[in-house]
Amino acid sequence: MYMAKVIGSVVSTQKDQSLVGKKLMIVRPIDSDQEPIRFEQVAADTVNAGIGDNVLVVRGAGARRADNGAGNNAPDVNDCTIVGIIDRFDK
Amino acid sequence: MYMAKVIGSVVSTQKDQSLVGKKLMIVRPIDSDQEPIRFEQVAADTVNAGIGDNVLVVRGAGARRADNGAGNNAPDVNDCTIVGIIDRFDK
Amino acid sequence: MYMAKVIGSVVSTQKDQSLVGKKLMIVRPIDSDQEPIRFEQVAADTVNAGIGDNVLVVRGAGARRADNGAGNNAPDVNDCTIVGIIDRFDK
Amino acid sequence: MYMAKVIGSVVSTQKDQSLVGKKLMIVRPIDSDQEPIRFEQVAADTVNAGIGDNVLVVRGAGARRADNGAGNNAPDVNDCTIVGIIDRFDK
Amino acid sequence: MYMAKVIGSVVSTQKDQSLVGKKLMIVRPIDSDQEPIRFEQVAADTVNAGIGDNVLVVRGAGARRADNGAGNNAPDVNDCTIVGIIDRFDK
Repeated sequence: MYMAKVIGSVVSTQKDQSLVGKKLMIVRPIDSDQEPIRFEQVAADTVNAGIGDNVLVVRGAGARRADNGAGNNAPDVNDCTIVGIIDRFDK
Repeated sequence: MYMAKVIGSVVSTQKDQSLVGKKLMIVRPIDSDQEPIRFEQVAADTVNAGIGDNVLVVRGAGARRADNGAGNNAPDVNDCTIVGIIDRFDK
Repeated sequence: MYMAKVIGSVVSTQKDQSLVGKKLMIVRPIDSDQEPIRFEQVAADTVNAGIGDNVLVVRGAGARRADNGAGNNAPDVNDCTIVGIIDRFDK
Repeated sequence: MYMAKVIGSVVSTQKDQSLVGKKLMIVRPIDSDQEPIRFEQVAADTVNAGIGDNVLVVRGAGARRADNGAGNNAPDVNDCTIVGIIDRFDK
Repeated sequence: MYMAKVIGSVVSTQKDQSLVGKKLMIVRPIDSDQEPIRFEQVAADTVNAGIGDNVLVVRGAGARRADNGAGNNAPDVNDCTIVGIIDRFDK
């Protein structure tokens, strides 16, 4: 699981059926000082995250388990999902 | 899921049976400013992406679920698939 | 499996149901000289690790198997778990 | 899936039962200009690749599906397999 | 699968039940010239590797299949295992 800041979203009309109806957010990984640390990824949103929010992101099979917003039965191809909004870093 | 630009394709005659009939595109990961950010990968195409398109790429089990174009029953060995064409970055 | 130092935790109110009740620790990967080596991650804690502890962290499916503290039946989305406290590096 | 050049092989007598009888090739990842781009890996060969060949390499579960040459029933531990020989880069 | 040199081990008393009885070795990834190439990891040993040995390491589900030394039935959380000792690099 990594920390990231939501910086935008992507619009994609032509895409896999399982991604229809999902919000695909652009996230920039950060450390706990909120400094950017790696490359941007695209993550499906399941917690109504907004631009500027610090969030928790999971990958792989966990990302598919979290990702239940599509409203269709196509096999889920997603591999990256926002699963929490970070309120605070305690250090 | 990551963002990438399609820059070409690979031709491979001698390959795993499950890859026969698939378009294997060379993709260069990009960030949302369309700057290249990491190393090239090869991804199976499921959305008729063309050279120069910005696309969404998934890896692992999700890549196999997206990847249904082979027309044969060999166990799918693919681990990287283009699942969407990016129309626009909203930031 | 990698070595890391626990440096804090994240507080997240709005999160996936399967993460409720879990301690989400900020870990900084280290080498066996205890030097930081990569970027911070967030890992669920299953061994009562405290800040400053050197720990062992697993990812992926192994992280979900280790992670049984939620007390609810939501599908587990976690992909990173602390599975041991390091007493000593033998070199 | 990534592109790589085969640069050698490893000889290992003491190894997991499922690896007996497999050719374990040393591969150096390359980009589509055939420049080396990351660190060497070891991949099981399923397509009779030779030293100097440019190849396609998959990882994870896909690598195990491709990897059927062992002739024994030990659970397959492999996570990296050569699945194609690259004839040409089209750009 | 990657190449690595065994440089030590970790001692951990408080750990996941499935890790009890396993040797947890510190490995430093190397290339085929035996130069260190990435960060240290911790891998369960299944081939009686000693300090200074060059070894083959697998990750993920393959690591759990290789890893049968625990003598208990706890779900295996391990994600990194030594599966072979390298006798020689042929280049």
